[in-house]
Amino acid sequence: MQSQPRFPRLALLGVGYIGGSAVQAARRAGIVGESVGYDPSSEACAAAKRLGIIDRASATPAEAVAGASFVLLAAPVRSMEELLRAVAPALAPDATVVDVGSVKSAIVAAADACLPAGRFIGCHPMAGAEFSGVEAANPDIFAGRVCFVCPGRDAHASALAAARDFWRGIGCQTAAIDADVHDRLMAAQSHLPHVAAFALAGALASVMPFLDATTSVASPTTSLRDTTRIAASGPAVWRDILLANATHVLPLIQELEARVAEIKAAVEAGDGEALERVLAEARACRRRLVKE
Amino acid sequence: MQSQPRFPRLALLGVGYIGGSAVQAARRAGIVGESVGYDPSSEACAAAKRLGIIDRASATPAEAVAGASFVLLAAPVRSMEELLRAVAPALAPDATVVDVGSVKSAIVAAADACLPAGRFIGCHPMAGAEFSGVEAANPDIFAGRVCFVCPGRDAHASALAAARDFWRGIGCQTAAIDADVHDRLMAAQSHLPHVAAFALAGALASVMPFLDATTSVASPTTSLRDTTRIAASGPAVWRDILLANATHVLPLIQELEARVAEIKAAVEAGDGEALERVLAEARACRRRLVKE
Repeated sequence: MQSQPRFPRLALLGVGYIGGSAVQAARRAGIVGESVGYDPSSEACAAAKRLGIIDRASATPAEAVAGASFVLLAAPVRSMEELLRAVAPALAPDATVVDVGSVKSAIVAAADACLPAGRFIGCHPMAGAEFSGVEAANPDIFAGRVCFVCPGRDAHASALAAARDFWRGIGCQTAAIDADVHDRLMAAQSHLPHVAAFALAGALASVMPFLDATTSVASPTTSLRDTTRIAASGPAVWRDILLANATHVLPLIQELEARVAEIKAAVEAGDGEALERVLAEARACRRRLVKE
Repeated sequence: MQSQPRFPRLALLGVGYIGGSAVQAARRAGIVGESVGYDPSSEACAAAKRLGIIDRASATPAEAVAGASFVLLAAPVRSMEELLRAVAPALAPDATVVDVGSVKSAIVAAADACLPAGRFIGCHPMAGAEFSGVEAANPDIFAGRVCFVCPGRDAHASALAAARDFWRGIGCQTAAIDADVHDRLMAAQSHLPHVAAFALAGALASVMPFLDATTSVASPTTSLRDTTRIAASGPAVWRDILLANATHVLPLIQELEARVAEIKAAVEAGDGEALERVLAEARACRRRLVKE
């Protein structure tokens, strides 16, 4: 007789790129038995079924979680609280609930308020990419990546173990972190870089016809590719992340604006000394941020 | 009897990363005979000799170019005009003079004013990197890269052929382009991305102690690495580039500042609709810029 998989039944709420990739990886690793999905988009559910990510789709979130030992919340950040309220009464007593969101304080607080005590573990696998939609799901994106783990209030040891086993089972290293520290860290390491990349790509709108006309002689530089890569990310996803982490990201956006203004003023004034000073400070930061 | 190399004697004025890499590549390709260098830094000259990039160093620019058939100007942009004046009287009548600068209109105009007619070809190999100093020289950086070629006024066919042979000889594809079109293109594709990367890295100065304290749990994200990579570039080099191309880059810096301000205002106001619109416009630009 074969032993049961670690997670006999999994519910995936929100069938998109990250959730789809995680469940695909977990099924490939053999740690998930049955997989049930819920998503407002029936196209997403159909695609997930076609890709073997879910076995069947449920009509409601509550129906999807009934009998599931592991619930993966992978819906857009702004729909999370509603989802938590919808599934709370239907959860199995020993179910573990995790999410995959890029901002952790708000969701951990919401889960503490809505769910039975001790069952929620906030998670953030650092495997985001500029892709979206379950059709792009890729089970290979987790290998070797860190997954931050922020337990909710009085998290049960069994829930924490389940969350760790899930992420480790698909190749992640887990790292426990306080939700607020996580959010401050991500504001600096991910959210502000996205603001910069979106602002840069958007700033080029004014010269787009000129750039279109030069594509015969000039392909995009590596600089342009690298600095704008993450501006290909989903606008709705990033709207939610920036709003959810406004407390920590706003002061940094103000710093970014101030630095752009400093460079502008120095170039405008032809002030080489001031310009070199701003650039040298920036380089010192980069070298401290990324040791290469 | 062996045939002579394409460039029997080359003079390298300004012994740094790009010039050093180009001459190293050209010597490896066997297209350069003797190589003479000039640089105000005797350490740079000593390193270049040690690396086999130059055979000997000259005490003055004029001495370095005497008898050279090919002169490679690779000094900082702001010292170029002085260099051109210094070498003009000493140039061999059939010498070809090229540069490697990131901004072309000013240098082409300066060469037209200072040098004998027809001998200058403005060049810009797209092989820049966030490295500096001849010690970092790498002959492999040119393979498959575009080198923009902007002939000066009434450029002689022999000079244009020499410039093309040099860059093609080290693996570049050459692309002729009008100097002003080049500068507008680089403002968008390279100079503004550098401004964004420098501004982003600099903006993180305020949270650097916090980030230092989290290095045990969190290594830099891919987003952060990619978006700040070019902020490791030389501050003096980029001071010169931004000032030399102020005409084209300033309006774009203003656009960048405006986009950052738009994102800030939307986050501040919690205006998800406005925020998503700015981000969606930016994504559309990115997709038009980089077809993947």
